[in-house]
Amino acid sequence: MLKAGPSQEEIRRHNLGTLLRHVHLGGPISRTVLADRMGLNRSTIMALTAELTSAGLVREELPTDTRRAGRPSLVVRPESDRVYVLAFDVAVDRLVAARVGLGGKILDRREAVRTRAGADLDDVVEVLAGLARRIHREAAPDSVCVGVGAAYCGMIRPGDGMVRFGPNMGWVDQAFGAELGLRLGLGLPVSVGNEAHLGALAEHERGVGIGFANLVYLHGDVGVGGGIIVGGKLLDGDGGYGCELGHMIVNPYNGRPCGCGSRGCLEAEVGEQALLDAAGRASELVGHDGIRAVVDAADHGDLAAQNALDRIGDWLGIGVANLINLFNPGLVIFGGMLRDIYRGSAAQVHRRVAANGLLISREKVQLRTSALGNDVTLIGAAELAFSEILASPLEVLARKTS
Amino acid sequence: MLKAGPSQEEIRRHNLGTLLRHVHLGGPISRTVLADRMGLNRSTIMALTAELTSAGLVREELPTDTRRAGRPSLVVRPESDRVYVLAFDVAVDRLVAARVGLGGKILDRREAVRTRAGADLDDVVEVLAGLARRIHREAAPDSVCVGVGAAYCGMIRPGDGMVRFGPNMGWVDQAFGAELGLRLGLGLPVSVGNEAHLGALAEHERGVGIGFANLVYLHGDVGVGGGIIVGGKLLDGDGGYGCELGHMIVNPYNGRPCGCGSRGCLEAEVGEQALLDAAGRASELVGHDGIRAVVDAADHGDLAAQNALDRIGDWLGIGVANLINLFNPGLVIFGGMLRDIYRGSAAQVHRRVAANGLLISREKVQLRTSALGNDVTLIGAAELAFSEILASPLEVLARKTS
Repeated sequence: MLKAGPSQEEIRRHNLGTLLRHVHLGGPISRTVLADRMGLNRSTIMALTAELTSAGLVREELPTDTRRAGRPSLVVRPESDRVYVLAFDVAVDRLVAARVGLGGKILDRREAVRTRAGADLDDVVEVLAGLARRIHREAAPDSVCVGVGAAYCGMIRPGDGMVRFGPNMGWVDQAFGAELGLRLGLGLPVSVGNEAHLGALAEHERGVGIGFANLVYLHGDVGVGGGIIVGGKLLDGDGGYGCELGHMIVNPYNGRPCGCGSRGCLEAEVGEQALLDAAGRASELVGHDGIRAVVDAADHGDLAAQNALDRIGDWLGIGVANLINLFNPGLVIFGGMLRDIYRGSAAQVHRRVAANGLLISREKVQLRTSALGNDVTLIGAAELAFSEILASPLEVLARKTS
Repeated sequence: MLKAGPSQEEIRRHNLGTLLRHVHLGGPISRTVLADRMGLNRSTIMALTAELTSAGLVREELPTDTRRAGRPSLVVRPESDRVYVLAFDVAVDRLVAARVGLGGKILDRREAVRTRAGADLDDVVEVLAGLARRIHREAAPDSVCVGVGAAYCGMIRPGDGMVRFGPNMGWVDQAFGAELGLRLGLGLPVSVGNEAHLGALAEHERGVGIGFANLVYLHGDVGVGGGIIVGGKLLDGDGGYGCELGHMIVNPYNGRPCGCGSRGCLEAEVGEQALLDAAGRASELVGHDGIRAVVDAADHGDLAAQNALDRIGDWLGIGVANLINLFNPGLVIFGGMLRDIYRGSAAQVHRRVAANGLLISREKVQLRTSALGNDVTLIGAAELAFSEILASPLEVLARKTS
């Protein structure tokens, strides 16, 4: 409904959030550039910056690069050491916690390696809270935590962070977000997201996906997840459970069994276990190490490894062709373990996309690997945690420090 | 960028469009209900209605149902006979043209049955223009055509209505929209959309999809197309070519050849030809009649027909399960020939969705047949044609009648 314009107060809050988002995502940036990007005049930018500065969210300083002639424009820089979020990443074989400063810098990162036996909610939350306590002890006394976010390898109910289904850890309807919030004892709610959704958001905001309104992110861990950006926004669907591209069935009649209870899902055909089985290495290294060993062996001429990668690449290419036909994206990103699998099977993936993707749908698409590496889902969790303060900077900060 | 509120003029134009849209989609509607739905007071509604009335877009009258006590509220009604669009539907076996009045009423509908031999652009445009001329002769002299829309069974470039790829008619890069506009000679541009995209929009605005923010529409003609609504908007992708669910590969290694050049596409496994072949009726009736004959035979106990429908339903169910996992929609709609195929194979489709759809993704989804029948794509083309006048009613009308 368009009844009347927003109030001065709403405009101010929106502009403060927008300016802070530019600084948070773009790094140190001059007032001149900010004025240009936001379409506001320099005196307005100066007033907004002054407010954010006195709140302790940004500071202004001379640019480090002053080689150019003339009086240099001050750059606005996020107060990365003072303002931070806690980010967690729960994968099948590792638990990660980090303190991430405004601006996206990982200030402190701690990881606990887990056995693959399904740890229960209590164990996981206990380990994460322990990592967080150690992180907190190291933080400067005047620093402030403005949000908590977590990535989880399963289907998450938005709002309360309930893990509805986490087949690779054996979780069904576990109140992960609520329990972690309680155990942390910070009085802050924990925002939880599906790891691949958050990986897609991270690549879209900070990685190879910057500037793409339509992209498909495939995330390989033990399972295969997806995050799909449609028209600039994450596809969430009615309940927030969309993008489960790992459970697109590509091999219905001869398919491998999948952790979801079905058969022939993309995850079952291109996941870690499928590659290790195909390469005859199921009893050796697992996880990233196992995948890399196969890709390295193929690079060095190991025929069994090459054939295994061709076979996995064939299924991966079928899945990617289907996704290109459905989404007409500008970009397809391979993240997590799929980075290595894609590197080792790119030729086969491209052959399948050429054979099975519609010419018109694929004519402009690019296939790339994730730019954010192993921390892509952790960075996504941090961005989720920052979203509240970026929406209304001063209000959130006042609440956290009161 | 949120800099300042919209001008009074922008607010007025927006409100005129919104009111006209309510009347166009909802039918005769009282000022009281309009005030309620638009969140505006009655005097504003009265002023807006007066403007639209004097422009000849709506009229006010006493409701036909005056049984209730008290002074009845006037109802606002679209000027359906005076303000209309031309809508066209190009399918493989038929060409349809219609005059559709504001409010969505089909006032005049003419159809030319085509042979299936690929008719070229000139033939198709000539037939459509001929149908349109006859429709125009019957229109009242004071009526006004405010837009032209066309649905085409292929991939359409937005903006100029170029058919990039229409495999079932053998078209590649044919300037359909531009040619039709020239041949009609009305001085109006022709908006062209993919038939399944338009079918999805029609069901979303006027059919079983009303109120669903996330839905998947599958359209069966000779091929199988799709229109997918994500967060209330049609998924178009980077180039406007998204939603090609008919070319999702479900049977990569034993699949039937597809018109797109690939193999094992959903279209190849569940389309008309697949069903007729499976039922051993490839040499008998084709099109809707052929499909209905199989479904009727199955209803009457014909085992071959029942087996054929089970087999088609199995592939259809796999495709639907994949779409549910990807989109977490509230609703899946079967339109065109897939209405009959779904009616004849619903049990098998449901079995597959239960087996292959993730429990969390499918727990609230409904499966339904299209409410708009054979004219769903024609109605979608009409809505496309109305979109401009619904965005700025008075400006567009002034241009058309000047």
